[in-house]
Amino acid sequence: MQFKHKKLSNGLVLIGEINPPAKSAAVGYFVRTGARDETLEINGVSHYLEHMLFKGNDKLSALEVNEAFDIRGAQFNAFTSEEQTVFYAAVLPEYLIEITELWAGLMRPALRDDDFTIEKNVIKEEIAMYQDTPTFDVIDRCRSLHFGTHNCGQSVLGTVETVDALTAEQMREYFGRRYAPNNMVVACAGSFDWDRFCETVEAVSGKWPAQEVGRTLTHFEGTKQKARAEKANVKREHLCLMHTGVAAQDPRRFAASLLSMIIGDDFGSRFYWDLVDKALTEEASMQFGPMDGTGMFYCYFRCGTSNAGKVMDIVQGIFRDLAANGVREDEVSKAQNKVLSALVLKNELPMGRLLDLGFNCMYLGEYRSIEQDVEAIKGVQVEDVNRLIREIDLNSFTQYSLGPIVS
Amino acid sequence: MQFKHKKLSNGLVLIGEINPPAKSAAVGYFVRTGARDETLEINGVSHYLEHMLFKGNDKLSALEVNEAFDIRGAQFNAFTSEEQTVFYAAVLPEYLIEITELWAGLMRPALRDDDFTIEKNVIKEEIAMYQDTPTFDVIDRCRSLHFGTHNCGQSVLGTVETVDALTAEQMREYFGRRYAPNNMVVACAGSFDWDRFCETVEAVSGKWPAQEVGRTLTHFEGTKQKARAEKANVKREHLCLMHTGVAAQDPRRFAASLLSMIIGDDFGSRFYWDLVDKALTEEASMQFGPMDGTGMFYCYFRCGTSNAGKVMDIVQGIFRDLAANGVREDEVSKAQNKVLSALVLKNELPMGRLLDLGFNCMYLGEYRSIEQDVEAIKGVQVEDVNRLIREIDLNSFTQYSLGPIVS
Repeated sequence: MQFKHKKLSNGLVLIGEINPPAKSAAVGYFVRTGARDETLEINGVSHYLEHMLFKGNDKLSALEVNEAFDIRGAQFNAFTSEEQTVFYAAVLPEYLIEITELWAGLMRPALRDDDFTIEKNVIKEEIAMYQDTPTFDVIDRCRSLHFGTHNCGQSVLGTVETVDALTAEQMREYFGRRYAPNNMVVACAGSFDWDRFCETVEAVSGKWPAQEVGRTLTHFEGTKQKARAEKANVKREHLCLMHTGVAAQDPRRFAASLLSMIIGDDFGSRFYWDLVDKALTEEASMQFGPMDGTGMFYCYFRCGTSNAGKVMDIVQGIFRDLAANGVREDEVSKAQNKVLSALVLKNELPMGRLLDLGFNCMYLGEYRSIEQDVEAIKGVQVEDVNRLIREIDLNSFTQYSLGPIVS
Repeated sequence: MQFKHKKLSNGLVLIGEINPPAKSAAVGYFVRTGARDETLEINGVSHYLEHMLFKGNDKLSALEVNEAFDIRGAQFNAFTSEEQTVFYAAVLPEYLIEITELWAGLMRPALRDDDFTIEKNVIKEEIAMYQDTPTFDVIDRCRSLHFGTHNCGQSVLGTVETVDALTAEQMREYFGRRYAPNNMVVACAGSFDWDRFCETVEAVSGKWPAQEVGRTLTHFEGTKQKARAEKANVKREHLCLMHTGVAAQDPRRFAASLLSMIIGDDFGSRFYWDLVDKALTEEASMQFGPMDGTGMFYCYFRCGTSNAGKVMDIVQGIFRDLAANGVREDEVSKAQNKVLSALVLKNELPMGRLLDLGFNCMYLGEYRSIEQDVEAIKGVQVEDVNRLIREIDLNSFTQYSLGPIVS
């Protein structure tokens, strides 16, 4: 494995991890923009814009874009989160340069008015579909409640109202500010020629002008409020809790990933034994969500509405026990195995490796090898996890419940 | 890459592809048994038995089995098809031997009466869930219609009736006949020590007695019948067509995979341009299904019921055109790119590689490197695809429609 990096004069960062025996290569554009970089008025524009990039540019129609990926057998996709918009593809090494050139061209989309109008319905359907999925909806609502007026509370999809009101002009203005070369990273992993990769990116992107770009970075503890919403067509109780977390840049992030595994992994966790194995909930999980300059943990439970009170009593009992007695040595070593295994298996494919490469560059401004992350996870001690438990205060959290109408 | 193989005196075949720089390893048991090896009376037993293996053996309870995988961070699963039952796991190299030992032990399950009774409800729920999924249901029904009394027409899940009537004694009898060491292959791929792998498997499995095992292998052209079923809660028309195909052992299988890609890939295929792009169907696909000694192609369409006639006219027009004029050079080279890319990307992970290793061993009794398959796909000529079109007769197929009640 060889790591390479380069910065163009307009600020565009190129990084690559070369793995000659790999049989494929993966390339991705990471744009440092997402829901938290939007104003409330244009909430949802980042995600909508992600869709619009596939509509083509001055040279290619939407159909030609699809065909260009298709004839090269590329496996490609994109996603938008609170903090990133990421476009990526995995290909056979012989097509890497052509696909890189294609992506680079798509980063300067036409944003045609008629495409904008047609795509608006697709976006609104997607919003409706997610709102009809209680598991997703309750987490989205809880995030808003938890972050209050902090910019991390904004929904990635936006609302039907904000999307309806959005104009193509507003999107073009947002695009102009956020898709600046100095707000992007192009990453490549697998089997590829670094020099040709750089030449290709530079030829297309070297003249894009740099912009003033930034992001409001403030840590936020969360509002710790409680709320419940009712929906006639929801049959089960869906509960989401959010705790204060640690940032993607925080050295405690490794202990945080072990803690969420110990408390809320699908199998063998505290939640598993006390809730799922006892058939009190169908699902009970805890995830660690590191973010740029802040972070959170979120728990999700699904159960019968009549059980919800009992479930919350048990959950708070688990939290109190952890606050008083901490985690056990065997829990930490088991969680280390699980986290390590997931990390290594995900990073084995150029496609999986690409995402970690890009995120490390965006969040930390540095390259980290898999071996460095493996060592960091192995190095976490019981006391590190227990100190984190005291610091985040497990007994204090935001709570959102979504369930059937209770008469 | 180094290929290794070994056969124990009881007939158990061990194969391995060693890839030292890989960061994980995958191990799997391939049992040459599935729905086609069942009698009608016990239809569904292979799939039910796959579930029962996770209930443990004389040494381990179901919970202990789960925990044994979990503490090692193994990603594991199993599936049953018409012809195989496969159990597999991906792990960090340091746990490969323990996980191999665990799987080997599970291949001699306890098949306890009480576990059998509890699991019966899980199986029946799974059957109900699939029957409520029209896309799955119509393909299952079409397969039965296509194969008629041939053993490949049997449903993998069985029916609620056959599963209800099945006894634990019948399952034990089936297990005794089919899970013989000479009807199994143990495969390993990635970073591992071949000698230790062999010692581990031999220590657990070396004394299992060989049995008389076999399979009825007859090629079958298909009944070419037509049928339609109505369901009150189905809103769209679901159409499945089945054509005569070629076997997993047939050298024409590479041309067959290109042909199905040209006719029915998700994007850019004949079906795509004439049906999906024209908004006549929401889905239109063709898949090649190679099997042991026989094979088939199946097409699936979803559309409004009032459009079904027009859709079938267009489909038959596509088939007539292909029969008269064949495929074009550019279609073949595009399909080669897509098939190659999917093949290489899938095989890059030890987990993906494992499945091809195991299937090649079971179907062909030989080892094939990825490079051999890549060359075979690159070597297919336009004339090979056109000859296949003439041989299978595209205008002759079995057809099953599932749709709403038409008054």
